[in-house]
Amino acid sequence: MPLARGQEVSGRVVACGVGAERWAGKAVIVPAVLPCGECDLCRRGLFTICRQQKMPGNDIQGGFASHIVVPARGLCEVDEARLARAGLNLAQVSIVADAVTTPYQAVQRAGVTPGSLAIVVGTGGVGGYCVQIARAAGATVVAIDVDDAKLAAVAAHGAALTLNSRNLDAKALKAAVSAFAKGQGLRSTEWFIFECSGTAPGQLTAYGLLVHGATLSVVGFTMDKVEIRLSNLMAFDARALGNWGCPPESYPAALDLVLDGRVQIQPFVEVHPLDDINRVFSAVHDKVIKKRAVMVPA
Amino acid sequence: MPLARGQEVSGRVVACGVGAERWAGKAVIVPAVLPCGECDLCRRGLFTICRQQKMPGNDIQGGFASHIVVPARGLCEVDEARLARAGLNLAQVSIVADAVTTPYQAVQRAGVTPGSLAIVVGTGGVGGYCVQIARAAGATVVAIDVDDAKLAAVAAHGAALTLNSRNLDAKALKAAVSAFAKGQGLRSTEWFIFECSGTAPGQLTAYGLLVHGATLSVVGFTMDKVEIRLSNLMAFDARALGNWGCPPESYPAALDLVLDGRVQIQPFVEVHPLDDINRVFSAVHDKVIKKRAVMVPA
Repeated sequence: MPLARGQEVSGRVVACGVGAERWAGKAVIVPAVLPCGECDLCRRGLFTICRQQKMPGNDIQGGFASHIVVPARGLCEVDEARLARAGLNLAQVSIVADAVTTPYQAVQRAGVTPGSLAIVVGTGGVGGYCVQIARAAGATVVAIDVDDAKLAAVAAHGAALTLNSRNLDAKALKAAVSAFAKGQGLRSTEWFIFECSGTAPGQLTAYGLLVHGATLSVVGFTMDKVEIRLSNLMAFDARALGNWGCPPESYPAALDLVLDGRVQIQPFVEVHPLDDINRVFSAVHDKVIKKRAVMVPA
Repeated sequence: MPLARGQEVSGRVVACGVGAERWAGKAVIVPAVLPCGECDLCRRGLFTICRQQKMPGNDIQGGFASHIVVPARGLCEVDEARLARAGLNLAQVSIVADAVTTPYQAVQRAGVTPGSLAIVVGTGGVGGYCVQIARAAGATVVAIDVDDAKLAAVAAHGAALTLNSRNLDAKALKAAVSAFAKGQGLRSTEWFIFECSGTAPGQLTAYGLLVHGATLSVVGFTMDKVEIRLSNLMAFDARALGNWGCPPESYPAALDLVLDGRVQIQPFVEVHPLDDINRVFSAVHDKVIKKRAVMVPA
């Protein structure tokens, strides 16, 4: 049987295995990375590097199907009353798996503190939530992208300053952020930088913003290499943190941000019937659809 | 007056300013980076990024002089009875400032734990101590260099395996470390990698050794850039930590390792009269002197 793709999955439990009966009928989000929960790494809390982890759509059936079988361990229950009060439906919150939880984990791991300055490079399908999550953690957020429409969207949802990196070289960009920080009475050190574009130019932009004591979170992925002065980490006493997924244990807290309205997903998501998948894929590929497209079986 | 260089300084206090009288006659090491101790960053414990920090030989008079004036704050007292018992003299322990404390700080920051695998790339004037400090922290240590003589020196002082990276490409090097880890019953994840060569090839070697949950400490400095896949930090859920100097508060613990004999400095240091400085500098430059040369005024 071929594998159905679809890594961000929500749905209702219609059948349970032995021992998982308590999930019957529940609305759930399936984490995009499911650690085994039993190996030495999991027992030591290192869920994100579990070598037996399963990813829906990669290792097990994904969400582009009417019904799938998933492990009960790690499922994130969705409180449907709160969901309704937030004006959301279950399909929309599928994107909590990965698009919200991955930057959530990055913000947690970086240790963003109230009163800090956070910079998000790449404000698309992941970065748009990163802006909101960093804001919810108490940071003042600078958003950087090459797309004015995306910058306008995050300006309405948590970004205090937006900068288009097409118009500014690395030096001018850093000067602009520095001037903003100074004007806002924020620190010129310890910036939290989140690279969410998953592109080489975005990574160079993010790396160029290192200041003393900075934390650079590498959230996006690209196969491309970048040419950087690695020793700047040493000269700035700075650090770069990679971030693979998010432990299922952290999903409820990330979902809370969405259900409380501190992280808005409605402006960044659109729902389509699963039967339209080919048309929708083309439209996403051609950038006709710019929001994250959620596919729902009939 | 010109500035005397010399960043690693030990000596005896022969005169004190008001309020520093308790230091009279004491044997001391002068930290290579002296934070102000009073700014907002210092008050928050972020000594390594203090913007008012002073470096002997850079911002204030350094050790290539018969007498220098230094701030009392941060001086590290040397117990001369323990020093004698360790078979060392005060000149030799000057190199604790930087050559020992910088890798000490890197090992602390990385959080090396007993039973872990540490890899030190570049086993010269800093890396040789890094090997010993990581060993003292309970790690099994793999040493990598391009110089067999340096590898032989660290094999006698804490390295369980030495590998010459001239003979192995990145893939073979990683395979060799993996096989060694497996044979020793050590983890294939969470390696602690210390880049101490301060060269672009060394950095590429170190970066190529990333595994899941790895920590790469950037200890050495070079202006050269390297071309790397930054996203590997994300794919491996790994991190890269820069490291600027060491807080004076950590000097006594680093010195303890030396005075207890857990970190041997004698095999890596030679002492010369300060009057010979020009000859010694040439010999170091020409690699005739391979050990760290300590200059002592007549």
